[in-house]
Amino acid sequence: MKPCIIFCASEFDGLMAPLPEDAFIIAADGGLTHTQNLGISPDIILGDFDSLGYVPQDSRVYPVEKDDTDAMLAVRAGLEHGCDRFLFYGALGGPRLDHTVANFQTLAFLAQHGARGWLVGRDYIITVASEETLRFPASFTGILSLFCLGSDIEDLTIRGLKYPLEHGQLSASFPLAVSNAFEQEPASVTVGKGLLLAMWDRSNGLCTREAESC
Amino acid sequence: MKPCIIFCASEFDGLMAPLPEDAFIIAADGGLTHTQNLGISPDIILGDFDSLGYVPQDSRVYPVEKDDTDAMLAVRAGLEHGCDRFLFYGALGGPRLDHTVANFQTLAFLAQHGARGWLVGRDYIITVASEETLRFPASFTGILSLFCLGSDIEDLTIRGLKYPLEHGQLSASFPLAVSNAFEQEPASVTVGKGLLLAMWDRSNGLCTREAESC
Repeated sequence: MKPCIIFCASEFDGLMAPLPEDAFIIAADGGLTHTQNLGISPDIILGDFDSLGYVPQDSRVYPVEKDDTDAMLAVRAGLEHGCDRFLFYGALGGPRLDHTVANFQTLAFLAQHGARGWLVGRDYIITVASEETLRFPASFTGILSLFCLGSDIEDLTIRGLKYPLEHGQLSASFPLAVSNAFEQEPASVTVGKGLLLAMWDRSNGLCTREAESC
Repeated sequence: MKPCIIFCASEFDGLMAPLPEDAFIIAADGGLTHTQNLGISPDIILGDFDSLGYVPQDSRVYPVEKDDTDAMLAVRAGLEHGCDRFLFYGALGGPRLDHTVANFQTLAFLAQHGARGWLVGRDYIITVASEETLRFPASFTGILSLFCLGSDIEDLTIRGLKYPLEHGQLSASFPLAVSNAFEQEPASVTVGKGLLLAMWDRSNGLCTREAESC
């Protein structure tokens, strides 16, 4: 497993943990400000730099008029580098709610490409899972909200949470699984086909996937 | 057309316009604080009142443990009353990003039930369209971001915006249509099957649907 850490231009509220030594670090547009403040040298600086307002040295410059967001450009660079785990800082919150939603979909893109992403915001950690089990340790507290992102999820099993479910359905047109809650026991969420967006309090840290420690 | 105005518990930044005289007004849980501050008497007060912290007089009280969010309870009450246009205040922003996402899906629920909803936030107005055309007057400025909420949208046509599209596709796993922009001309977005989330700057006001003035 090869980690990629992507810094985007939105709110940044500190690192979850020191960056792994083997991490591939990308500053996307205004995310460069965060790496500069942290004294980190990114492996790649990329974007259209409309957020940053200037074009930094040794950067990959893309036109403003393009199909990819700066976060998506960073994802493509990380995938090309062989990364399969993506941690995003500065990709949630701030005044651009549309970029927050776009980044949910960037997580979905990763899930469909055999990789995993987490958005780390001031209050939340968010991931997207597909055809797999998310595992949460008993230490997790607070709310776990789950949403269907695309086509209906036909087979969703939730165990160890306040509201369990066995082989249930979830659709994008009814928020059935918002505000579930951790219950001081190990919890798991298994999703069949489909894209499941999961969000929980940042203070808990990242979840674990089967055979994956994070 | 019968309007329903729903006040929810999140951030509230003032009314877009005076409430229509025939509006059916619902205060959902903590949304009662907003109607009280405005000196408005809601037709219905409902919710589990975990946000408000007390149970107001003459309210419909629901258990905390239920499938519907308070916003969804309000939508069901409005639909039962015969309403087909729903304006939500206090349903965007604030610390609960999961409730913001849940409210996107509440708009999708309305679209699938032949009604329309708009979330009015401090910065954005958001709606969901399905099998119809959204029309925007030439006076609109700024960004228009579009997202697929559920199954792939197979037939999306965008006219009069910076990035036009004819009979294109949009999926929930790639944010292709984020950050489109108004161009000082009348614009339209036509969506075939599927659920399209559209968001634009609040300062523009509501959009118009074919044969509908709002």
